[in-house]
Amino acid sequence: MMDLNQEMARIKKKVDSLILKDLLPQSDEVGEVDVLYRMMRDYPARPAKGLRPFICTTSCRAFGGKIEDALLTAAAIELFQNWILIHDDVEDGSRMRRGRPALHVMYDWTLAINAGDALHARMWKALLANRLKLGAKKAITLMDEFSRIVEETTEGQHIELGWVVGKKWDLTPSDYHTMCLKKTAWYTTIGPMRLGAMIADASGRALEKLVEIGTKLGVGFQIHDDVLNLSGNKKYGKEIADDLLEGKRTLILIKALNSCAGSDKERIVSILNKKRDEKTVREVKEVLSLIKKYGAMEAASQEAAGLVAEARGMLRRLSWDGDRRYVQLLDDTARFLVERNW
Amino acid sequence: MMDLNQEMARIKKKVDSLILKDLLPQSDEVGEVDVLYRMMRDYPARPAKGLRPFICTTSCRAFGGKIEDALLTAAAIELFQNWILIHDDVEDGSRMRRGRPALHVMYDWTLAINAGDALHARMWKALLANRLKLGAKKAITLMDEFSRIVEETTEGQHIELGWVVGKKWDLTPSDYHTMCLKKTAWYTTIGPMRLGAMIADASGRALEKLVEIGTKLGVGFQIHDDVLNLSGNKKYGKEIADDLLEGKRTLILIKALNSCAGSDKERIVSILNKKRDEKTVREVKEVLSLIKKYGAMEAASQEAAGLVAEARGMLRRLSWDGDRRYVQLLDDTARFLVERNW
Repeated sequence: MMDLNQEMARIKKKVDSLILKDLLPQSDEVGEVDVLYRMMRDYPARPAKGLRPFICTTSCRAFGGKIEDALLTAAAIELFQNWILIHDDVEDGSRMRRGRPALHVMYDWTLAINAGDALHARMWKALLANRLKLGAKKAITLMDEFSRIVEETTEGQHIELGWVVGKKWDLTPSDYHTMCLKKTAWYTTIGPMRLGAMIADASGRALEKLVEIGTKLGVGFQIHDDVLNLSGNKKYGKEIADDLLEGKRTLILIKALNSCAGSDKERIVSILNKKRDEKTVREVKEVLSLIKKYGAMEAASQEAAGLVAEARGMLRRLSWDGDRRYVQLLDDTARFLVERNW
Repeated sequence: MMDLNQEMARIKKKVDSLILKDLLPQSDEVGEVDVLYRMMRDYPARPAKGLRPFICTTSCRAFGGKIEDALLTAAAIELFQNWILIHDDVEDGSRMRRGRPALHVMYDWTLAINAGDALHARMWKALLANRLKLGAKKAITLMDEFSRIVEETTEGQHIELGWVVGKKWDLTPSDYHTMCLKKTAWYTTIGPMRLGAMIADASGRALEKLVEIGTKLGVGFQIHDDVLNLSGNKKYGKEIADDLLEGKRTLILIKALNSCAGSDKERIVSILNKKRDEKTVREVKEVLSLIKKYGAMEAASQEAAGLVAEARGMLRRLSWDGDRRYVQLLDDTARFLVERNW
């Protein structure tokens, strides 16, 4: 038996070293460019779980590949997470990230958008370097997968932002599922698992199955993340109930709105339609207690747990070519997705 | 002799068709995703010169390659131009682009940032498709060049934005040159010429020379662009003197500030340091007349003409393997860069 936290920390250390020493630029004699480099290194240097790169290397090993062959790809996944977070924080107006002020709060927001673009390009550069170890053909196959991942994620991000911009509230759990599959599952679980499998030359059949499994895991992860956001755990690193300030359409909210009385519904919608700065602490607390009144957090948690349980069953039935300890580690990771408190 | 405008229009038509029919998604049944697709197609469908793709295909032909082999890469260059313009317009607060409202004016600015990211990913997807015609190895070489181009451009963009954010005015023509080389020359002239040359298997020596030649052409192009911006030609498609509203540090302004009297300098800086919305038309006109008083526009124009003349001399001395008519066309394009009125 391997220890999940220990293994996750071990991979994170390798990936961080690759990112901060090899993939990102250190300094430049032109003062402004030096600031850009500092901005690009900021989020990657903050404490984080390193969950996505870990899923990639573990999947690779479980399918019979070598961890060393997956490290660059794992680092590229982490770079993806970082540039998308920079843009996401600007778009959502988030003030905090990983326990510190968001990048656009520390620097100008125009510089933050540009730093995100610069980091995005470094993600592709890392993937291009894959050819040295894996050959040009496999490097391109992995980039095809990234191309799909970015497509899905930006589509999911558009759906979510579009709901807020359009003040849209008549949403069903199925709408949430579509958005969440695109916005979260592709880059958190589907992509990382499939990339690891591709590096290990897994079968096309396994790659197909991983879409379904990764969907359940990724949606489960996001629902649990939304629950954590409203529970206000310090270790979580964001403002408490930041999602309510932002007006995010979480499954929790959709469930609450779909089961609550007309007057409560109007009250929730009227508060959440206000801009971030116009919402008072009292109003946010009011929405929170309405959510609790209708048991929406528990209902969402149960749905997340159910999805992950299904995914774990499917994972066990896949045919694995690699070290069984890593199959077990993947199973531990799946549990962690909905049991973590950070 | 071939006609420049006619040839440019011919290539533009091919590239547009590739982009709008093959490379960009058409529609989606999920309403929000459909809006995203419409946003991604918006700038590419607006009237534009198609200068950068044309430089790429012409360079390829002049070095002995086939235009068909360069079309996907040329389309990727155009996609690059489009996603960077979307972000640039948000960052600069520009209201107009190509004669119509900027994307973030038509839609929400948060959606515009995300649409830029989605388009960025499609650029890499186009480059990945290059392997079908050119093989995996050359496709990767071309992507390496794009990686460099995005790096340089985002660094240049950071320098320029950083000057505005930091209210920095003690700049020299050499500072401008560094910024402009990165922000404009790499993706306008250096990159497109080198990519065409790479597709045609030009020598390493030629590729090196093209950095120097492309630098002169690109900086010349940008200086002329800044002159056009202040001259207020309708065909140009942006707000007149938009650069002054934005507070851009153009060579024109730097030259004016370096040669004007103390009180005039203070006046220019105090007006330009105001935010876009706080500047009055009268104030913008005042800066414009001070610029004219010190002959800064003529001086900048002459510098642009000089740079392009040098580049044309160097272009003639390169050893070309291809059709001489295309070498001539490249020379015509170089002249066009500083003689165009749009």
